[in-house]
Amino acid sequence: MKKNTLLKKTIEQVLRGRKLVLVSNRGPVQFDVDAAGRRRWRRGAGGLITALHSVLTTTKALWVAAAMSDEDRLVAREDALIGLPEDDPLYWIYLVDIPPATYDLYYNQISNKVLWFLHHYLFDALRQPSFDKEVKRAWSEGYVDVNRRFAEKVAAITQDDPRPIVLIQDYHLYLVAGWLRQLKPDALLFHFVHVPWCSPDYFKFLPSEIRQKILESLLANDIVGLHSWRYARNFMHCCQDFLGCRIDLRHHKVFVGDRVVYVKAYPISISVEELTAIADSPEVAEEKIKFMKLKAKYQLIVRIDRAELSKNLIRGFEAYALLLKDHPELRGKIKFLAYAYPTRESLSEYRTYRAAIEAIVERINTEFGDDSWQPVELGIEDNYHRSVAAMSTFDVLLTNPVFDGMNLVAKEASVLNMSDGVIVLSENAGAYEELRDGVLGVNPFDIEDTKNKLYQALTMTPLERGLRANRLREIVERNDVLKWLLHQLKDIEKVSKSSAIYQPREETRDLVN
Amino acid sequence: MKKNTLLKKTIEQVLRGRKLVLVSNRGPVQFDVDAAGRRRWRRGAGGLITALHSVLTTTKALWVAAAMSDEDRLVAREDALIGLPEDDPLYWIYLVDIPPATYDLYYNQISNKVLWFLHHYLFDALRQPSFDKEVKRAWSEGYVDVNRRFAEKVAAITQDDPRPIVLIQDYHLYLVAGWLRQLKPDALLFHFVHVPWCSPDYFKFLPSEIRQKILESLLANDIVGLHSWRYARNFMHCCQDFLGCRIDLRHHKVFVGDRVVYVKAYPISISVEELTAIADSPEVAEEKIKFMKLKAKYQLIVRIDRAELSKNLIRGFEAYALLLKDHPELRGKIKFLAYAYPTRESLSEYRTYRAAIEAIVERINTEFGDDSWQPVELGIEDNYHRSVAAMSTFDVLLTNPVFDGMNLVAKEASVLNMSDGVIVLSENAGAYEELRDGVLGVNPFDIEDTKNKLYQALTMTPLERGLRANRLREIVERNDVLKWLLHQLKDIEKVSKSSAIYQPREETRDLVN
Repeated sequence: MKKNTLLKKTIEQVLRGRKLVLVSNRGPVQFDVDAAGRRRWRRGAGGLITALHSVLTTTKALWVAAAMSDEDRLVAREDALIGLPEDDPLYWIYLVDIPPATYDLYYNQISNKVLWFLHHYLFDALRQPSFDKEVKRAWSEGYVDVNRRFAEKVAAITQDDPRPIVLIQDYHLYLVAGWLRQLKPDALLFHFVHVPWCSPDYFKFLPSEIRQKILESLLANDIVGLHSWRYARNFMHCCQDFLGCRIDLRHHKVFVGDRVVYVKAYPISISVEELTAIADSPEVAEEKIKFMKLKAKYQLIVRIDRAELSKNLIRGFEAYALLLKDHPELRGKIKFLAYAYPTRESLSEYRTYRAAIEAIVERINTEFGDDSWQPVELGIEDNYHRSVAAMSTFDVLLTNPVFDGMNLVAKEASVLNMSDGVIVLSENAGAYEELRDGVLGVNPFDIEDTKNKLYQALTMTPLERGLRANRLREIVERNDVLKWLLHQLKDIEKVSKSSAIYQPREETRDLVN
Repeated sequence: MKKNTLLKKTIEQVLRGRKLVLVSNRGPVQFDVDAAGRRRWRRGAGGLITALHSVLTTTKALWVAAAMSDEDRLVAREDALIGLPEDDPLYWIYLVDIPPATYDLYYNQISNKVLWFLHHYLFDALRQPSFDKEVKRAWSEGYVDVNRRFAEKVAAITQDDPRPIVLIQDYHLYLVAGWLRQLKPDALLFHFVHVPWCSPDYFKFLPSEIRQKILESLLANDIVGLHSWRYARNFMHCCQDFLGCRIDLRHHKVFVGDRVVYVKAYPISISVEELTAIADSPEVAEEKIKFMKLKAKYQLIVRIDRAELSKNLIRGFEAYALLLKDHPELRGKIKFLAYAYPTRESLSEYRTYRAAIEAIVERINTEFGDDSWQPVELGIEDNYHRSVAAMSTFDVLLTNPVFDGMNLVAKEASVLNMSDGVIVLSENAGAYEELRDGVLGVNPFDIEDTKNKLYQALTMTPLERGLRANRLREIVERNDVLKWLLHQLKDIEKVSKSSAIYQPREETRDLVN
C-alpha cells in the first residue's frame, strides 16, 4: 500500500493536470454480449495488461486499444465514454474501430509474422522472409493504416490538452508516434518496446522502406524504453546505421536534427502484491493439492509458456529425453509437467509447432513411460490458477526461450515457489541479466547443456537450493513492477522539464508519409 | 609491374629476415598421381587462394595447409621440402596430415555446418542448431584437434626463427593463434576472417564453451582483420560481451589484460592485372563468342556463384519470375544465364538446395518458356573461362546473397564487363560498402525490390549505364588486392615496432585447454 501511495503521488506530480494516455493493441477489457443480449465485459489477460493496470488504478487515465470482438467494434462506433469499473471509474477506455480484414493484415501478417519473427531471430534466412506484393500490401493497407487510426484516436480524445503524456506500447504500434507528433507537436511521447530489439544486421531483413519508417517514427518519441541495455544498444546502432544519427551510448541518447531522443532500459517486472494475493486464493489452493500429491512421488520439472515458437519447447523436450537416456536412474522418479497454452493459432507456423510439441511428448512417453509412469504431462490450455499452483510447487522450472524480451514466468516463479525450486533459465531472456546469480543459465540451442543443467538442478543440495531461491526472491521483490513504472515516470518528469517545446522541422513532418 | 615491385619492397622491409608463414585450410596446390603413378600437382581455385598467391610470388614464404587428397597425406608424412614452382621455387608448401574422419568433423560438421551458418545468419532458430553430444565431439575431436595440428606444424617449421610473421586465414582456423601463442610467444600473429562477423546476439547461438574458446584464441593474435568495419564492430562487441574486454571502437582496439589487439577492416579485392590477362586468353575469347551471339537476340541477365545457401539463388529466380509476370513485354527478349558451380555436396542441406534450384528453373522455363525461348539457362558446373566471358558480356549481373563476407564476383564483373552492364548487388555483401555508388543495391529478402531493380537495370539509359560502369571500374582498379595486402603489411610493421615482447600470463596460457 505504501508503494501504491508513492506511485499515485509520483503520477500526480508528473502529470500536473496533463492527460495520461495509454496506447496498446490489446486493451484491458473485451466486450461481448450474454445470452440475453446484454453487453458485458471481461478483463484481458497477459503480463503487460497486468503491469499497465497498476498505473491506471492510481489515476484517471485514458486507455486506447484496438476493437477486437464484434461487440468491441460496436462500442468503438458508439463513441461512448466507458469508465471502468463502472460504478466508480478509475480509467476510461477508447476502442479503435478497425475492419477485421485490415486488422488481420496489421496483426497477423505484419506484427506477428514479420515483426515478431524479426525481433526474436526466428527467420529461416534460406526460405523466409520473402517480401512480395502481398506483404507490402499488408504493410501499407494494414499496419500503416491501423497505426494511423490509433494516432488519430489519441489526438481526438486529447483535444483539450495540447501536452498529453502518451505511453505507446510494443511492436504493433511503431508508427503511432510518427503520426501523433504531427497532430500533437507538444505531446510527450514515450514508446515502450516489450520484445528484444535485434542487431542492425538482423534489422536489415526488413525491406528498406519499412525499416526507415519504423525507426523514423520511433524517433518522433521523446523516450524509447526497452527491457535491457543490450536491446537499447541495438536500437541505437540501428538509428546510427540506417538513419545516420549520431548516438551517445553512455548517455542513452540519439540525436535527430536538433532533438534528443532518450533510449533507456527499464526491465519490466511483476506486481508481487497482486501475485501473492492470487496465490493465496482458494482456486489456487485447490490446484496445489494435485501438485503436492505428485510431489510426494516425483521430483517435478515444470514449464509454463504460451505454445510460442520463441519459447523453444521442442529443444526442452529433447533435453529431457536425453536426461532420461543418460540417467536411467531418474526414470519413474521425476515428472515433466509442461503447460503451454494455445496462442496465435491463426498462423500455420503455430499450428505446425503445436503438432510438433504433441508428437515429441507422445514419443517420449512411448519410449520411456509405462503403465505406472508417464514421463511428461502436457497441458495445452489456458489455466492461470493451475499455472500459479505449479509455480508454487515445482522442484525445477525450465524456461529456455531462444530469445525473449523479458520472461515474466521466471520472475513470478521466483516469488511464488515455496519448495526452494531451481530455475533453469535461458541466457537469451531479458530476465537473465537480473536473475543470473540465482538461476542456472542455459544456452537454449544447446540441448546437452540443458540436459546437464536439469540434472544439476535435480541433484542440487538443499542448502544451495535454498540460497539460490532466497537470492531470486530478494531480487524480484526489490524490483517489482512499481519500480519499473516509477523509473519511467521519473524520466518523463525530467524530460518534461528539460525539453524545449517540440518544433517539427520539414524533414520530420514527412516522417510517415 | 610497378605495383608488384612496391609490394616486394614492402614485404622485405616488414620481414627484415623474419619468416613469413601463411596458414589456410586449403592450400595453393593439391597432389595426386597420374595414370603412370607419378605424383603431380594442380593449382587450387578460389578467390582467397588467388589473392594470397600474389603475396607468395613476391617472397620466399612458407604455406601451411591441410592435406586433403590421399596423395596430399603421403606428401605430408614424407615431410619433404616442396618448393613451387619446382624449377625455381618462390614458396614452400607444408601439408598438415589429418585423418579423413577427423577432417570431416573439423571441416564439414563444425566449419561448414556450424560456423558458416553462424556467420551468414543461416540458422533456422526454431529447428537448428541443436547442439548435442555429436556436435560437441566434432568440436573437440575435430575442430580443436585439427587446429592444434596446424599450430604445431607452424611451430615446427619456424624453429629457427623466434619471431615469425604468421598470417592465419578464415573461420576454419580460429584456434591456431591460441595454441601458437604458447609455442611461439614472440611471433606476430595476424588472423584474417573472410566471412561476415555476426552480432553478439547471434554469436550467442554457439555453446558457451565454444564461443569463449574462439574469442580467447582470436585475441591471442596481434591483429584481427575483417572485410568491413561492421564486422569489426561486431567482433569487438563480442569481445566486450563475452569476455568482458574493454574496447575502443574508434581506434580499433580490444584490450586483453596488458595487451592490445587491433581489429581492423581491410576489404579484400581482386588482382586486376591477373584477371585482365585471363580475360584476354583464347579460351575466354572462344566462350565470349557464344555470349555475343546471345546478346544479338536478348538482353542478358547473368549470375555466377557457388550453389551456396548464402548466395540466395532461389529468391533471385523468384524475382525473375515476378519480372516475367509483371512485364510480359520482356518475354522472349531477355535471358537469365545462371551459372552456379557445385559446392559442399557432402552436406545434405546443399544437395537439397541444388535440387530446389533445379526445380524452380524447371518451373520458370515451363511456365514462361516455349519452343523458341527458354527464360533461364542453368549451368551447374565449374567453368571459370565461361564465367569470365559471361562477366565480360552481361547486361545485368545479379548477385543477391543473404549475407556475404565480400563478394568478389561484383568486383571482377566491375572490371571485366565491356557492355556497360548494370550490377544488382545485395546490400548485405561486404562489397556493397565500396560499390554502392555504382551498383543498384537490393535487399536480398525483398523479391519485389529485386524484381524492380532488375527492371530498372534492363531499362536504364545508356548514359546512366556508362556512368555507373565507369564509376565501378574506377573504384575497383583503385582498390585492388595489392592495396589490401599493403595495408595489412603496413599495420604489421607498425605493430612490430610498437609492441613489447609478448608475455603470456597465467590466464592466457590456459586459453585453449
